[in-house]
Amino acid sequence: MKVSLRTSNDLSQFICSNKEGNSITLGENDAVGPMEAVLMSIAGCSTIDIIMILKKMRQEVRDVQVKVKAKRSKSHPKVFTKIKLSYKIYGKVKEAKAEKAIDISLNKYCSVSQMIEKSAKIIAKFEIIEK
Amino acid sequence: MKVSLRTSNDLSQFICSNKEGNSITLGENDAVGPMEAVLMSIAGCSTIDIIMILKKMRQEVRDVQVKVKAKRSKSHPKVFTKIKLSYKIYGKVKEAKAEKAIDISLNKYCSVSQMIEKSAKIIAKFEIIEK
Repeated sequence: MKVSLRTSNDLSQFICSNKEGNSITLGENDAVGPMEAVLMSIAGCSTIDIIMILKKMRQEVRDVQVKVKAKRSKSHPKVFTKIKLSYKIYGKVKEAKAEKAIDISLNKYCSVSQMIEKSAKIIAKFEIIEK
Repeated sequence: MKVSLRTSNDLSQFICSNKEGNSITLGENDAVGPMEAVLMSIAGCSTIDIIMILKKMRQEVRDVQVKVKAKRSKSHPKVFTKIKLSYKIYGKVKEAKAEKAIDISLNKYCSVSQMIEKSAKIIAKFEIIEK
């Protein structure tokens, strides 16, 4: 896997691109910060898994939304110490299936959470909205 | 720290926002993947530090560019096992100062690399371009 970073003119923002040329902008001001991007990566990585697993379980997922809250260490390096993921799963999805899908993702497939959980306690809760 | 994720219509892309409303789009196709975003976060986080440290050292940094290459585990969870960061530092910067700035960032301040180095060996090299 290869990615690259180049700066904006005033060095405060970073345009980051993957091999296919898709990019995101990270930065300190008026942009997503690198630590925020890590939380977003955990949410995105697990959501990909959860949708895939629920589809395999023949559940009708219409939408997934995630809120992430995190606490950081007070001294350097200010790593995450606790991360709470709250999933809203929209569709005809059985509670036990949703619970299993989240568990399989966070504890097996989601490479991002598997790396971050070496620093932070990661907890998840979910809600199913059947509309 | 708080972030949120919502999906695009076909569930393949994820619009991720921070509290200030700045957002990035992650996804599987035609977007930056979550694991790519983690590498970008390491590059961004360390670049913020390096620019700040070099400025404190009264070095004239004009630009920083980073290329990141990473290897992943072959079995699940496919965590990073090796990450190589190549920095190009543009400006009137002394080699010893650049080396120290990168070292301080990756080994003390950069929260992202400090979390990821529990899974992956992170190595850095740099080049100074004085123009």
